[in-house]
Amino acid sequence: MKTIYAALALSVASAAFSQRTLEKVEPAFWWKGMKNPELQLLVYGKDIANHEITLSDGIQIKGVQKVENPNYVFITVNTGEINVPKFSINIKKGKKNLASYMYELKQKEPNSANRESFTSKDVMYLIMPDRFANGDEKNDSKPELTEKVDRSLPNGRHGGDLRGIINNLDYIQNLGATAVWLTPVNEDNEKAYSYHGYAQTDLYTIDARYGTNEEYKSLSHELNKRNMKLVMDYVTNHWGTSHWMIKDLPAKDWIHWFKDGDEGFKRSNYKTTTQLDTNASDIDKKYALDGWFDKTMPDINQNNPLVLKYLTQNAIWWIEYAGLGGFRVDTYPYNDKEAMAKWVKAITDEYPKFNIVGETWLYTAGQISAWQKNSKTGEAAGYNSNLPSVMDFMLFTDMPKAFKEKESWNTGMIKIYDSFTSDFLYPDINNVLVFFENHDTERWNEIFNADPKAYKMGLAMISTVRGIPQIYYGSEIGMRGDKNKGGDADIRRDFPGGWKSDKQNAFNPSEQTAEQKEFFQFTSKLLNWRKGKEVIHNGKTKNYVPQDGIFTYFRYNEKESVMVIVNNNEKDQTLDLKRFEESLKGFSKGKDVISGKELTIQNSVMVPAKTPLIIELEK
Amino acid sequence: MKTIYAALALSVASAAFSQRTLEKVEPAFWWKGMKNPELQLLVYGKDIANHEITLSDGIQIKGVQKVENPNYVFITVNTGEINVPKFSINIKKGKKNLASYMYELKQKEPNSANRESFTSKDVMYLIMPDRFANGDEKNDSKPELTEKVDRSLPNGRHGGDLRGIINNLDYIQNLGATAVWLTPVNEDNEKAYSYHGYAQTDLYTIDARYGTNEEYKSLSHELNKRNMKLVMDYVTNHWGTSHWMIKDLPAKDWIHWFKDGDEGFKRSNYKTTTQLDTNASDIDKKYALDGWFDKTMPDINQNNPLVLKYLTQNAIWWIEYAGLGGFRVDTYPYNDKEAMAKWVKAITDEYPKFNIVGETWLYTAGQISAWQKNSKTGEAAGYNSNLPSVMDFMLFTDMPKAFKEKESWNTGMIKIYDSFTSDFLYPDINNVLVFFENHDTERWNEIFNADPKAYKMGLAMISTVRGIPQIYYGSEIGMRGDKNKGGDADIRRDFPGGWKSDKQNAFNPSEQTAEQKEFFQFTSKLLNWRKGKEVIHNGKTKNYVPQDGIFTYFRYNEKESVMVIVNNNEKDQTLDLKRFEESLKGFSKGKDVISGKELTIQNSVMVPAKTPLIIELEK
Repeated sequence: MKTIYAALALSVASAAFSQRTLEKVEPAFWWKGMKNPELQLLVYGKDIANHEITLSDGIQIKGVQKVENPNYVFITVNTGEINVPKFSINIKKGKKNLASYMYELKQKEPNSANRESFTSKDVMYLIMPDRFANGDEKNDSKPELTEKVDRSLPNGRHGGDLRGIINNLDYIQNLGATAVWLTPVNEDNEKAYSYHGYAQTDLYTIDARYGTNEEYKSLSHELNKRNMKLVMDYVTNHWGTSHWMIKDLPAKDWIHWFKDGDEGFKRSNYKTTTQLDTNASDIDKKYALDGWFDKTMPDINQNNPLVLKYLTQNAIWWIEYAGLGGFRVDTYPYNDKEAMAKWVKAITDEYPKFNIVGETWLYTAGQISAWQKNSKTGEAAGYNSNLPSVMDFMLFTDMPKAFKEKESWNTGMIKIYDSFTSDFLYPDINNVLVFFENHDTERWNEIFNADPKAYKMGLAMISTVRGIPQIYYGSEIGMRGDKNKGGDADIRRDFPGGWKSDKQNAFNPSEQTAEQKEFFQFTSKLLNWRKGKEVIHNGKTKNYVPQDGIFTYFRYNEKESVMVIVNNNEKDQTLDLKRFEESLKGFSKGKDVISGKELTIQNSVMVPAKTPLIIELEK
Repeated sequence: MKTIYAALALSVASAAFSQRTLEKVEPAFWWKGMKNPELQLLVYGKDIANHEITLSDGIQIKGVQKVENPNYVFITVNTGEINVPKFSINIKKGKKNLASYMYELKQKEPNSANRESFTSKDVMYLIMPDRFANGDEKNDSKPELTEKVDRSLPNGRHGGDLRGIINNLDYIQNLGATAVWLTPVNEDNEKAYSYHGYAQTDLYTIDARYGTNEEYKSLSHELNKRNMKLVMDYVTNHWGTSHWMIKDLPAKDWIHWFKDGDEGFKRSNYKTTTQLDTNASDIDKKYALDGWFDKTMPDINQNNPLVLKYLTQNAIWWIEYAGLGGFRVDTYPYNDKEAMAKWVKAITDEYPKFNIVGETWLYTAGQISAWQKNSKTGEAAGYNSNLPSVMDFMLFTDMPKAFKEKESWNTGMIKIYDSFTSDFLYPDINNVLVFFENHDTERWNEIFNADPKAYKMGLAMISTVRGIPQIYYGSEIGMRGDKNKGGDADIRRDFPGGWKSDKQNAFNPSEQTAEQKEFFQFTSKLLNWRKGKEVIHNGKTKNYVPQDGIFTYFRYNEKESVMVIVNNNEKDQTLDLKRFEESLKGFSKGKDVISGKELTIQNSVMVPAKTPLIIELEK
């Protein structure tokens, strides 16, 4: 990091690479007809602030903003006033034209602003692209990118890519997922440990080891053709140390510095409750928000209006360019909360149905709900996030404990029930992501020793409770991974069959082992059933206090009703139905969604040990 | 319970006792000048509904309400229109006057409506009167009350009484408490296990084994003279099976019945989260709210307007009669929530500063805060309780765990810190009761093996964090009690010295053992210091994320600042002060509140093992 600080202090002269007069314009192009016609162009080149910038076709520059570093100029134009599809940006010194850039204002896709986004109708499939499937071996390593492929290294790059995902869309679709969340695929050109993508080095370019911008767009279009959505993992909180702008900072306050830190670095204390906590000390809050998530991840200052505008336009650019169906936003409460409220608003002003889910890794409904748009809990803290969707980390935390521990007044299935008793705090409970694992957590199948029964109980629950279920690649074939022992690499193992050299291809149902089949078929059966079930997507919920290790709940609307019984006992149980009269009134039979068998709904139902029963009630 | 149902079914004829035409008028008297001039009189007597009721002095009856049971009539008068101090209520049959009752409208105490109530300036001392001190042996047993004194029975009546409390007010005052909460002292004439008082049998009469109404009033006046307050434990949720009205129910819907229950009885499922839970099933909610807290405690239907009015007037009657300084309301979320909101409003309309704290035994700030007046969390559930104060059962739950467990990311002192991070959810965080034990919980000194260090840490915290500290009789001399082993009786042991035959009188400082002295003197020192500390009562809080088992926080206002350091380590620690710069700015020294020693506030402070340091900062 020494170079960063030095570069800034000594200005452009000390920049490590030889610069041209005009290196970059960002966004590289834009679109006509945005609701917000104002466009801010970052113009980057050697000493560019000391030159004159003009536009062709008599187009006016509405504002010019210079910063500490003379290699940057930010110019503002009003796209509403520009009537040509292309115009040139000219860099002049006196009368001499030093460089030009042909700027294009494209036509938006029809109905782009009104695009649909992921909702509770969807099931989200989370993929770490480096670890899923290697569809193009030619891009495994790239001369211009530092880290080369080495599948023998747990934390190395394994070669998975966008082509690998595109090749396996049938698999994902058959599984029943309807939205695909990829961990970041923008360029992450850190020296090592770059496969996770969270230390991005170019926000406008897909990492060449994953593919090209065009391939990313293709993936999105292929998904859209299948009525599926691509969800981008957006990182506002930090960039990589090797980001070109970090290496030649526009201004010192582009990122957060710690005077007493190691060249600016201080690790975050990860105490994001400080954001809304009226008792928090300034210093704890500062470390939480301004501290770096990791040493390779300088903490971005969203509070700088130029930064915020950059992040906002970049986000909109990807939505429009790639036809995205949503964002998952990393480390949400680590960001400046007011800036993020503006960021979300700017995006959803352009795309009113666009869904954005924040990684709200907190532990209580009071805290998590406070990050959802228009929440009363947020209001209590004087905050409105504008953020449509949050993640139910409370359920995530409680579920595995609940399945493992003994039943008591407040343990066992009661714990899961209890976690739903505060749903009233969420203003939009259907727009909450529900999951039992992700790429940062212990794998469910590791916790439960790859027991398909435990998997089925967990999946049945996240697929039938309120919210948007999110599953994590590989668990649907029983994949394990032990973060405690093997670190993150172990929960991000390669999907078997994603590489030509793999001995087995689990993407192909006919090659799946019996164990894999059991996981896969249950998942596929359940998620495909869920696709058409409005009663699950947006129905009401009625929960019954678990008794004797059995949790029973109903999802219902005016037309349909689904009964879910989860028996966490080691023994089969006969469940007396009398207690559920208010929910069973008018129904005399039902269909077991998994087996397809018809059931009589009278007096009692037998529920096998460690089994979820999902019953579509019938009159 | 058979008799209850039978009595109702067969009406008065089957009542077990011989009734007079006029048995009771309740309230027995009232006051002029209430903001709400409407007064509802319960008139009770044999077949009274079949007689005519008239008032003297031309006073109009505004409303007559008859119920299923002809032994009751409810008449309404407008006290604003009554200009005589006394008037007679006459029960007539034709022209014959069968009975009369001289009704008095008294003068209120000056400034009664504007009375002060307990606030965060107070420290509340909780007493179980039967177990505190026996000041009058003559009332230990009473011919008219079933259960007789037997101190050898853990669950029997031990003879403690109001006189015993009055006799020991010096002790309580010297301890530094300023408000006294007695568990219920109204008549509880159940056959056995009546000492706790929660199965009340007469809401207008002090249990004769505790003393008389006059003595209760004396206790309150004696407290007021010392600038202390009496807090009544009010029970709206249930009465005892032997309550005279339960034995001759006015109407079936006076209480909650279960058809399939044992003569009406079904035990509550105690799942009071169902109250605000939008997912709760009706049956679970019904069992939670309408189920009986215990078999001897018929569940009162506050939703019956006559019941609600009865409870409201009774509450106001005690405030005005005894000069009360607050209510603690039992089993708060077990009651009908809308009825309770009306009950609280009626009381606080009469006495705007009157404080009422509900026993909100829930586990998250989201849930607990939802029961506080004007909370956003309550609003999220569509509810406004009107209730000024709630109990911080989250802190209560977390504190002992935190002190015992190892430090980690989310255990140890961090757990206490975390429990404060949701304070923003409370609309009035200073009006929250903070405590580490009460008469229903394991005793703190049992959990910590009577270690004075643990007691000091706990007491230091509840006395210096936001809210109203509540302590429990006897812990201030190190008393233990193990609920897990000995049941409730064991956490309600007799205070040593409360009985003439006791070998030791711990009320007398000179008789205290060295161990008792250590507990007592620390408590007395701390609480007496707290009395004058506006900065503790209403100051702001600044918490610092605990590090290495040390939790440091500040209470501050424009004038003062107090630093609290709790070292939960087994070793002495030197705390580097640099991190607290924002709170220490301008202060160079301080006084250790307990030792009185002056400290230099520079660079670092030494904090002994397992010790709280409370430092008044000085410039």
